[in-house]
Formats: sequence, structure tokens, C-alpha cells
Amino acid sequence: MDVSVIGTGITRFGMFVETRLRQLASEAADRALADAGVSAEEVGLVVFGNAAAGLLTGQEMIRAHTALGPSRVAGRPMISVENACASSSSAFHLGALAVASGAYDIVLVVGAEKMTSIDRSRAARALAAAVDVELEPSEDPERPPRPVFMEIYAAEARAYMQRTGTTARDLAQVAAKNSRNGSLNPIAQNGTALTVEDVLAARTIVDPLTRPMCSSIGDGAAAVVLTRPELAARRGNPGVRVLACAVGAARAGDDGDVVARTARTAYEQASLGPGDIGVCEVHDAAASAELVIAEELGLAAGGEAVELVRSGATEITGRIPINPSGGLIARGHPVGATGAAQIVELTDQLRGRAGNRQVARARIGLAENAGGSLGNGPAACVVTILATQ
Amino acid sequence: MDVSVIGTGITRFGMFVETRLRQLASEAADRALADAGVSAEEVGLVVFGNAAAGLLTGQEMIRAHTALGPSRVAGRPMISVENACASSSSAFHLGALAVASGAYDIVLVVGAEKMTSIDRSRAARALAAAVDVELEPSEDPERPPRPVFMEIYAAEARAYMQRTGTTARDLAQVAAKNSRNGSLNPIAQNGTALTVEDVLAARTIVDPLTRPMCSSIGDGAAAVVLTRPELAARRGNPGVRVLACAVGAARAGDDGDVVARTARTAYEQASLGPGDIGVCEVHDAAASAELVIAEELGLAAGGEAVELVRSGATEITGRIPINPSGGLIARGHPVGATGAAQIVELTDQLRGRAGNRQVARARIGLAENAGGSLGNGPAACVVTILATQ
Repeated sequence: MDVSVIGTGITRFGMFVETRLRQLASEAADRALADAGVSAEEVGLVVFGNAAAGLLTGQEMIRAHTALGPSRVAGRPMISVENACASSSSAFHLGALAVASGAYDIVLVVGAEKMTSIDRSRAARALAAAVDVELEPSEDPERPPRPVFMEIYAAEARAYMQRTGTTARDLAQVAAKNSRNGSLNPIAQNGTALTVEDVLAARTIVDPLTRPMCSSIGDGAAAVVLTRPELAARRGNPGVRVLACAVGAARAGDDGDVVARTARTAYEQASLGPGDIGVCEVHDAAASAELVIAEELGLAAGGEAVELVRSGATEITGRIPINPSGGLIARGHPVGATGAAQIVELTDQLRGRAGNRQVARARIGLAENAGGSLGNGPAACVVTILATQ
Repeated sequence: MDVSVIGTGITRFGMFVETRLRQLASEAADRALADAGVSAEEVGLVVFGNAAAGLLTGQEMIRAHTALGPSRVAGRPMISVENACASSSSAFHLGALAVASGAYDIVLVVGAEKMTSIDRSRAARALAAAVDVELEPSEDPERPPRPVFMEIYAAEARAYMQRTGTTARDLAQVAAKNSRNGSLNPIAQNGTALTVEDVLAARTIVDPLTRPMCSSIGDGAAAVVLTRPELAARRGNPGVRVLACAVGAARAGDDGDVVARTARTAYEQASLGPGDIGVCEVHDAAASAELVIAEELGLAAGGEAVELVRSGATEITGRIPINPSGGLIARGHPVGATGAAQIVELTDQLRGRAGNRQVARARIGLAENAGGSLGNGPAACVVTILATQ
């Protein structure tokens, strides 16, 4: 794919009740432009990923334009993209294709979500719209719906533990690793390094998942600037290369293999395999998901991901670091921003700009972002592979 | 642009209170696949345009997946796109670039909107979200907001009349023409041919616009199948070629020239000019807008579009037919479906399949679709140029 990332921008992730979506989105966008050394006029198209602002703020129709109104790109052509928790990886996918097509020299991709508000039930209500609303109506519209997604992940966790011998302590070790990584990430929502004991002692959300094993919803935005490699070289800013970006979806009769299938497509596009990956950002909506995904991506054989954790291989200093940013668990999961945040982290890692959480000798990175549920798997899964030039 | 449209599908447009969005969207999608002779498995990506289902139905996050759940493409990778009344032309734009990039051989673009419901204030509320909700809050959240857009269009109409000597009777002639065209279109929402006197005698919405001079919101869906020209040829189905597709946006300091600017970009992409266009579908949200847009597209000099109407040049049998489908006024304006419906009409015209409303010898067609308002012009404008092979 003839596309490079030449700039990144990200806000702090957290619960900023008083901060508006437009402040977050515009801050990330302007930082990405500044990092890339690109003027607003050079941006041919903005692709804006957001999952649920319509339900959260009442703003639909022109989400991109309002969210980026205070930014330097106000007035540039914009299109909004929605794909549940995979919204901004989907925006990245379409933005990358827009550059690859030759129609645009420079495309800005922004992912942003503002989930906290005075009315705390709103975010839960909005998240619940990532299942089929008409088929699964909330019983009582006045009460916030059950935490649908954590029930899905907890059920997956229980099945995985039974199948593989993984223990609650193993899951706590994943969460503790991600919390340590998050404590090294200045933009992380959860900046406190937790021990395995801290994680095990925390409140249970849905058995076996305790609070620190679950991703945190919140507020945040991330942005990347895309161009073609030859234009990047001409600017003296090679950035990192997009080797692959594949989108998958669960389908009837699936055996829950959408992530594996999408990853295979991405590996084929990039002409490489799991053994070539040096750093990963994956969709750890729950600690158990990180293990399941590691196997789906081929980073461990079936049932053996737990060995990666026990051996320390997925630590920042390990053989195959996973979620050096802290992942959804510690960096936070403002849903429409997550996919773009993963690309920002990988780009920063591959450019050697990840500070205290820098992975040594990372040359090829993989991001896996999933969203929505259709009963037999995620509605969308996006796998992206990036590499140093 | 190396992209061809090889299949189209459209539903009836109208007010179908009992019909669900998923029925409309899936019907259009399946018809387009059948028309193209394409199997669901061949569809690499679905780009789904919808403006306001989150506000109208409570379904966000995975709109495409739910709306196309009953269709043959259920389970294919999908991304939802939102850009107010330009949602499905924006989806078409990104779908065309996805094909042009070489990443996908076949992309399905669907536009769908379901605006009528038992609660009639819902659609008005949702439409009002196409302005900046935070900056222009509805005074009383329990009352439906004022018809913001028709006030914008009426103000534009009054200014245009004063500037050009266009009369209310001229506007009525535009509306009557579009109603006659609509009466020849089996899917049109308003199928009754009106006289100029009928239009003038109708209820005033905002002076000078009477009811038949205003577009009708409603329910409907449209879909197109895209591929690369060489693949189209290999299938024995050349379809029509996408010569250009440009997206513009209003910007600070604009002199209301976004449509003209976007059209210029499209003409440059296609290496042709207004004189080459043989048939148009334009965003006649109001009858006056059709005249203003004709000038912005360069089809008439400034202030002279009214002559096109008085002379009959924009009739189906005229020199430069505009809105042979009946346009937003008569075919109807289920907002997220409109852009795709324009492409369906042009494709059918260029393939000689437009039945009683067929434009003779049409070889090049232009669609103009606009959406949202940022005060100084539409938030988005998409101009597409199609041609026979």
C-alpha cells in the first residue's frame, strides 16, 4: 500500500466532564498537522471517526465539521465515519485508500469520543447501541442497560480459562502489565501501576473480570496525517509505511474467527507473518481479550498465549511487546478514538519517540481494533501493519 | 478515475411508517447486486451512507450492519458514513476511491434513510442536527425545532429573485417540471404532475416557497455497485464510467461559492466543462436552489438560470435536462439516500434504461449533492460526473 504516516497527535485520555468533543478533536488534529509539518490548506480530505456522538451529544449529520470547527482544518472537506469501537481504524482504512488512489496527496484521519457527561447513564446507553437495538431493546428505557460488552467478554474469558488452564492470576498479570505501561504513558487515563494483587483484590465487574481487567470508557482524541511515500520523502519526513490495512466482519456460520481471518488478509497484503511483528497494539477491551487476540493474530499457538504473559514476552522489554501504550485497559477507551490512538502509538514506537515505554528495535508494528457485536463476533475488525522505512 | 458503476438498485421513495430502515436498505442493496450480476461474496467492502438513524431510531455504532442485516451482503466488511444530506454521495466518493486504490475489486455503496415514524417531530429534530447543535440549541427541547433549512432556502430564494428578476411563477415552473418528471418515475414519492397554478396555489411554507417548491422528507434507499473498468469489461458489463468525484466544504470567508468551487474541481478531474454535460441531477432542496445551482455549475451565466426554465431547456426534452428523476422535490428526499439516488438516476439515464423519462442521447451526466449548513454555506458538497463508455 503506497501510504505513509507522517504525523501524529493525541490528547490526554481521561474523564473530562467539562471538556467538549470539539476541544479534544481539534487539539489532536492540530497536533498531528504540526508534527507532520503540514498546513491546513494542504489537507485534501479529513476522515473523522466517531462512534456515538449522536447519542451522546445530539450532534449527528455533520459531526466532523462541528468537532473540528475550532481546529486549523475547519473548512476543509470532511466525511464522518462510524463503526462502533472500530470507528477510527475504519476512518484510517478509508483515509489510507483515499491516499493510495492518488486522489489526495494528504489526508488527515481523526478519531475522537467524548463519553463522560453529567448524566452518567448516557455513555452506557450509547455503548449499548453497538448491538442491534431493534432486536435487543432495553427492557426499561429509563434504566441504563446492563454492561452488555463486559458480559460478552466475561463469557469469553470463562470459556478461554476452562479451555487453556489460564487462571484469574494470569488475567491479573495482563492487567498489571498494561497498567505499568500506562504509568509510562503521559496521556494514559489510568496512570497508576498496579500489582497482580491490586488487580485481584479489586471489585468484580462480571466474574472473572475485576475492574482493572476491564477497559475504561472516557474522553480523548487521536489523529494521524497520511501521504504517499514519495511525497513524504520529498518533504524530508519519511514517517512510517502502511504495509497493510484490512477490514473484516463477522458472518453467519462463523466460528468466531473474524480476527484471525482479517489478520491473515493483512499478513498477505504485507507479505509477512506473525513472526515478523515487533510490537502490537490490540483491542484489550478486557484482559482476557488480549490473550485470545494474541492467538488469533498467530503470535501464540492456540491455548498458549498465557505463556507469553507468564514468561514476560509481552512486556515492553520482552520478545513481542503487546500494548506498550497501556492498551484500552490503561491508556483508556474513548471508543471512537481507540483505533487512531493505536496507530499513533505504533507510529511513535516505530519512530523511536515513545519515551520511557520505547520498545527496543521495533521495526514492524501491528494494530488490531474491533467493534460492535453481531452475536457471532465483532461487527468490524481492522488489522493494520506499519513499518519503519 | 478508474472506476465504473455496473449496477443500480433503488426502492420506492415515500412515507412508509410501517417499513423499517433495514427493509429499505436491504432491498436496494440486493437489487443493485442482482443488476450488476455480482455475488455477495465478491463484494469486498460495503460503504453505507446514512445521515440520522442514530437520532431517528436510536441505532448508531453499527448502522450499516443492522440496516443490511437482512440483505445478501450481511457479513461482508462494512463501514458507515455520515455527511448530512450528502451522506451517500460521500459514501460513493470513498467507495470509488477504495476501488480506484486497487484494494478492492468490487465495492457496494448504499444510501438509506427512514425519516417517517409515528412520532412526526422526530424527523424535524434529526434534521435540525445538521446545524451546529451546541451553538444553536433548540429553545424548548419538547417542541420540534423550526424548519431551519427552509428558512435558509427561502432567504436564498428572496435574494436571488431580487438580484435576477426571477418571479414566484418561475419557481413554480421549476417545481411543476420536477413534479411532471416525478410522475414519470415509478419510485417517486410525489407522483402527481402539478401545473404552475397548482404550485402557486399551495400552502406557503416560508415565503416565497410553497409546499410543492420544497423537497419532501421521507423513506427510501438506493445502491450502486462499483468496480474498475477493466474488470467491468471482463464481466461483459461495461456500465458507466466515473469521470470525476469531488468533495467541497464551506470555509471561513467563503462568498457562498462552495458548489462552484467543487464543480470546477470535478470538471478539471474529468477534463471537460459545463457545455459537455447532457443531463443533471442537482440538490433541489427548494425550487429556487435548482436555479442557483445551475449557475454555480456553470450551466447558465449569473442571473440567467431562469431563462433555462422559461425556455424549457431543463425539461427532459430540452437542451440540458435537470432532475429528470423529479429531484428532491418530486422523487423525494430521504436525506441519507439522496446522493446515491442521484447516481442511480444518472446511471440509468446513461444506460438508456430510464423508461418514460429517458433523456435522448445523454452521454455525460453530473450529480450535485449538498449537505448541512455551517452558516456560510453547505458543510459538504459532492459533485460527480459519469459518462457512457
